[in-house]
Amino acid sequence: MAASLDDALRRQSVRHFEIRRVGTGADAAGGVEDDVVATEEPLEIRLGYFVDGDHRERSISVTMRTPGKDLELAAGFLYTEGIVRGPDDIASVGPCGPPAADGLVNVVRVEIARGVPVDLDRLERHFYTSSSCGVCGKSSLEAVKVQSRYDVASVPFTIRREALGGLPDALRREQAVFDRTGGLHASGLFDRAGRVVLVREDVGRHNALDKLIGNRLMAGALPFHEHGIVVSGRASFELMQKAMMAGCPLLAAVGAPSSLAVQLAEEFGITLVGFLKRDRFNIYTRPDRVI
Amino acid sequence: MAASLDDALRRQSVRHFEIRRVGTGADAAGGVEDDVVATEEPLEIRLGYFVDGDHRERSISVTMRTPGKDLELAAGFLYTEGIVRGPDDIASVGPCGPPAADGLVNVVRVEIARGVPVDLDRLERHFYTSSSCGVCGKSSLEAVKVQSRYDVASVPFTIRREALGGLPDALRREQAVFDRTGGLHASGLFDRAGRVVLVREDVGRHNALDKLIGNRLMAGALPFHEHGIVVSGRASFELMQKAMMAGCPLLAAVGAPSSLAVQLAEEFGITLVGFLKRDRFNIYTRPDRVI
Repeated sequence: MAASLDDALRRQSVRHFEIRRVGTGADAAGGVEDDVVATEEPLEIRLGYFVDGDHRERSISVTMRTPGKDLELAAGFLYTEGIVRGPDDIASVGPCGPPAADGLVNVVRVEIARGVPVDLDRLERHFYTSSSCGVCGKSSLEAVKVQSRYDVASVPFTIRREALGGLPDALRREQAVFDRTGGLHASGLFDRAGRVVLVREDVGRHNALDKLIGNRLMAGALPFHEHGIVVSGRASFELMQKAMMAGCPLLAAVGAPSSLAVQLAEEFGITLVGFLKRDRFNIYTRPDRVI
Repeated sequence: MAASLDDALRRQSVRHFEIRRVGTGADAAGGVEDDVVATEEPLEIRLGYFVDGDHRERSISVTMRTPGKDLELAAGFLYTEGIVRGPDDIASVGPCGPPAADGLVNVVRVEIARGVPVDLDRLERHFYTSSSCGVCGKSSLEAVKVQSRYDVASVPFTIRREALGGLPDALRREQAVFDRTGGLHASGLFDRAGRVVLVREDVGRHNALDKLIGNRLMAGALPFHEHGIVVSGRASFELMQKAMMAGCPLLAAVGAPSSLAVQLAEEFGITLVGFLKRDRFNIYTRPDRVI
């Protein structure tokens, strides 16, 4: 994407509204004020690809996202869904069509390189592949196993306890839009020293992580064997699945994990940290990586 | 659903894991302890319906949810997606197939009453209907307009400031599973006096609201013209869309709203309250309902 379009999108990451701030006490005046709110707009991802020499094009996803880093979001989504396996599978990625009245382009088109097999059924099968017991947590884990390419369990990443404790503050310092709106999730990439090296924000927590992974995919910097991921909210199955697809050995969440997130971490040997605070946290799986 | 199965599901709403609680200071022992985590498991919704006298069956959704009130979730989802228009459109709803090893039934089957037209394209069109400008916030609002049945703007609901301020505490008191896990979103229904009359919880915020709406749908108690909705987290477009489908005149969120949530509230005349705390909150739209 041209830098100028990405700048335009970034300016669209917040919107202004006239609101009333109200108190419940006697001094409950509540005048009209200007307020900034995190932007939420749909993004359609369209895929161009070849089947037996014929070119096809199809819309594969509409997600509600905060404008900015849209090409990273599209690339990261295709990677974490198992549609592309590396940067060379993508021939081009760019905005599609003219900007709307508000300057936004809400369609991204990804052209898959000729010769790359595209299995779109995968998007629909998602939870069904290799399912021997019907839809259940176990079948969901099986589906991840089929898609994943990395033996994350044997990745020798370690990090000191104090370095982990510093991550929430480091993440917040990078959250430019959250500070103004209180309305965005963030995903950050950090190294063994606990330095946050890349942060992405979005109204959707899965989008923030797809943007992060898409950035590293296009830079040829996957898998994440030398880095961990920190997320501002809770750790769901979906976030763990994306971390696994990126080959990441450790995910730390400021919020609570779900049961299936813990089961996925157990099954694949990912270190899962939850309720991460400066002075304490919980380790759910593979505590040997925290020293 | 038989009460016994629902009880069994409720017992499955948390899972136990052995974890380490770690401090970052000198006293950073970190022994192994038992911990409870909110359950996340996939739920498949299957639909049985008639087309020109032929019976058909199709899987229409897999959502990650916390077990419990699954039939409400399925019914609420069908209602907020515009597939059914009232309780009489549903001939039956029940668990499908035998329980898995852990006692869970992760498939719910909804049989649509004979003679009710079923438009499943709607699920895929979702963001595209009536779109004159491509995918954008405006087209998303247009899609809601096509689906909605209620003139929410003219619903004469009012509530006192102090009653609104009491909602977060009232919601938390009802959140049984959150208190143990920190991992669940909640949606609550409240009356003009600020009394919370029904609460549903889930790892997915949209599921918590679908369960709430599904409960009232099956009780024949829709639309919500005499009640407001309070949600424990942020107000997204998706939550506002569901509130609109239920005919609800006021949605109050403990967290921040998104831009498209505010735009939807403006367009349809719903009162939107955000950053709701005991002593203060923001009113984004239709402040006349807060007295």
